[in-house]
Amino acid sequence: TADSNEMVERFLDAAAGGDLTQVSTMLTHTPSLINQKGCNGWTALMFAARNGHYSVVEALLSHGCDKLSVNSSSQTAYDIAKFWGHRHISNLLCQTDDGCHPVLPGSYSNPQEIYFSREMLDRLGGKRTDNAWLDAKQSEPGTIYLLFSNLSPMVSSSQEDDSLCRFGYEAVKDLLLKPATTLIFLGVEKRKKVQGPPVWFAIGTDEDAAELLKRCREKNCSFPKSANRDLLKFNEEEAGVVAQARSVLAWHSRYSFCPTCGSGTKLDEGGYKRSCLNSDCRSLKGVHNTCYPRVDPVVIMLVIHPNGNQCLLGRKTIFPVGMFSCLAGFIEPGEAIEDAVRREVEEESGVKVGPVQYVCCQPWPMPSNLMIGCLAVAISTDIKVDESEIEDARWFTRQQAIESLLRGAGPAFTVPPSQTIAHQLIRHWIGMNSNL
Amino acid sequence: TADSNEMVERFLDAAAGGDLTQVSTMLTHTPSLINQKGCNGWTALMFAARNGHYSVVEALLSHGCDKLSVNSSSQTAYDIAKFWGHRHISNLLCQTDDGCHPVLPGSYSNPQEIYFSREMLDRLGGKRTDNAWLDAKQSEPGTIYLLFSNLSPMVSSSQEDDSLCRFGYEAVKDLLLKPATTLIFLGVEKRKKVQGPPVWFAIGTDEDAAELLKRCREKNCSFPKSANRDLLKFNEEEAGVVAQARSVLAWHSRYSFCPTCGSGTKLDEGGYKRSCLNSDCRSLKGVHNTCYPRVDPVVIMLVIHPNGNQCLLGRKTIFPVGMFSCLAGFIEPGEAIEDAVRREVEEESGVKVGPVQYVCCQPWPMPSNLMIGCLAVAISTDIKVDESEIEDARWFTRQQAIESLLRGAGPAFTVPPSQTIAHQLIRHWIGMNSNL
Ligand SMILES: [Zn+2]
Ligand SMILES: [Zn+2]
Repeated sequence: TADSNEMVERFLDAAAGGDLTQVSTMLTHTPSLINQKGCNGWTALMFAARNGHYSVVEALLSHGCDKLSVNSSSQTAYDIAKFWGHRHISNLLCQTDDGCHPVLPGSYSNPQEIYFSREMLDRLGGKRTDNAWLDAKQSEPGTIYLLFSNLSPMVSSSQEDDSLCRFGYEAVKDLLLKPATTLIFLGVEKRKKVQGPPVWFAIGTDEDAAELLKRCREKNCSFPKSANRDLLKFNEEEAGVVAQARSVLAWHSRYSFCPTCGSGTKLDEGGYKRSCLNSDCRSLKGVHNTCYPRVDPVVIMLVIHPNGNQCLLGRKTIFPVGMFSCLAGFIEPGEAIEDAVRREVEEESGVKVGPVQYVCCQPWPMPSNLMIGCLAVAISTDIKVDESEIEDARWFTRQQAIESLLRGAGPAFTVPPSQTIAHQLIRHWIGMNSNL
Repeated sequence: TADSNEMVERFLDAAAGGDLTQVSTMLTHTPSLINQKGCNGWTALMFAARNGHYSVVEALLSHGCDKLSVNSSSQTAYDIAKFWGHRHISNLLCQTDDGCHPVLPGSYSNPQEIYFSREMLDRLGGKRTDNAWLDAKQSEPGTIYLLFSNLSPMVSSSQEDDSLCRFGYEAVKDLLLKPATTLIFLGVEKRKKVQGPPVWFAIGTDEDAAELLKRCREKNCSFPKSANRDLLKFNEEEAGVVAQARSVLAWHSRYSFCPTCGSGTKLDEGGYKRSCLNSDCRSLKGVHNTCYPRVDPVVIMLVIHPNGNQCLLGRKTIFPVGMFSCLAGFIEPGEAIEDAVRREVEEESGVKVGPVQYVCCQPWPMPSNLMIGCLAVAISTDIKVDESEIEDARWFTRQQAIESLLRGAGPAFTVPPSQTIAHQLIRHWIGMNSNL
């Protein structure tokens, strides 16, 4: 392996030096070199991209190299080419597979996929008003039901993760007849099948949790107690389903009465509408948001020091010891995203913010937030913590953030778990222009 | 002026050709040349930026030229340098005034300021729980009250625009004593003054509108009837205040009762909270969104054809004849912005969307939406309209969009008014890479 290490080094050097002949020759003899990584996870494509060697990049692509591979700072060859201003190379690297140039400027790649955001179901909103269709689907053999008690889904736990307990019609049909049951139509599976894809429903019930658990044949079943921690253990697909189902059920659990007149309401449109039972109510004339589920937009932001090399993180009393995270807060009525970022940062930390850049977002079903993730550039640096909001806020260096993400010995702080958008924002910033 | 036109042309040619000596000499003799515009609104800075003449750009900047000037396609010199890949010039042009390089990559300049988004007031959220402070401010001489009837503000109309009727404490103190009055603390003016800046409140009342109008000494006062049209006539500053006040008042008008138990509620925290009057109510234990104003996030998107040169616009039956606009829809519980864009576009028009890019947002107080504006790239082109949502959807060429924005003779369609984010998205796309 000393020999093979040495060969990888020679290959990477050839790419970095723009030696097209050498790169091509080596690939012909040893095709497995193509995606090999050297120091810091850099591939030949990254070195060629950094140094502006267009023909080497072309050759590597034509040999089928993985252009989405990332180095230890989570950067692709595209990111590197863009940072160094090699426009022809970054254009080549972000071309779609049919060779067309991208329609929008910039990279399309969002940061890593965000937990709770994968959509394995097609919501089929148009079917929500088709009661005959919904009724027919309820009893179909392939239909899948999830059970929620007190907004927690029934899960089967293994050492690594939790998975949703799935039920068929026969196992839950008695629950469907009870008036206190809330039934939500979640959608149909997107993956193509010869037959119709399975339809998913969520059931919210106030039946006794211990009794409900007896319905399941799987072992180690439970209804998790701590939403914020226990709902982060699903695979990406199930996490997306939980985000949808829990948000809608949480709305039903708090919005049983008409806010406009105080009367009772009934559930409509597959669980996506509540209509007032008082026929004189204003909410029945025209379309009003009182009848539809609530989604609360929240800004969450990583504030970057004016020097570009530090970030501002805060901690709340309820956080685990040592954990610091991004500042965040609800968007107010009549407020734009960018202004909410500036207001919240100044309120909580006393730091003034200038430019704001949207990065990515995350549905957060506790109970039904939409976390809008931004980078923000500070234009002042003195910290003055509002202790009614957070207990501490500090500037951390890029190096401290990297150490915390890599969980080295004695990091300056603990980052939030990778399922959170705060984690992804920190990672995004780290990957943005370090080690290039 | 034929001479001076000719001199401007020579100056622009010198900048475009990179003739630093000629540019400097002409500026010394005729300093007023610096920001002169030629064909299509192009300045010397833009020509130098387009053709990569770094030293000319430097010289123009050192002579104090306006680097934020835009051409007739709304592009700055920065946009032009960036499009043509002149990285050193775009870096130079986006440097902050103290000479530092920007902390975030890309341009910070959002599209033109969006109507309803200017914040002339500091909301001072921390003061909302300080009843003594709020009480004291109510009767201060400088305090400003706005009057709303049925969610419409009292305005004084001139031929050009509407302005808010402003009242002092003496003119409204009787209303403040009435139980049906809703009082909202809006904030304090941001502009610095020697004395404390004025505090603003909004009053919602169900008093007779004709009687209310008698309180005003100004002429041509009224409560506009059509929110969607008449609220677009304010200047930028007042529009921002209206966005805030109307959103909060609209919430109070529909959310008088506790959605969790159906009891009555009382107004708290300067008008930003409603608390249940039933002391056993779950909504009083912990923090629940039932007590706070609702903000509904909406995606609004300009879908670009895979060829990059057409955009997809739709029209609803209620639109004025000939008007087409961006597609839009509410974000659902558990859904990310980008997925909501893809779902809504496919539902309404049958077109499939790939990459999505956030552009800007707009508070839209009818009643309390947050419009999240995106560009989206189509990956299919066949249109199949969902007639329950829109009556038509079509691809329009870039040229048709330009003609509509410029209101040339017989445009293919009418664009929405400039106060809408739909208009700004179309303008943003047009400016993106045409005529460069
Ligand atoms: Zn009602
Ligand atoms: Zn209550």
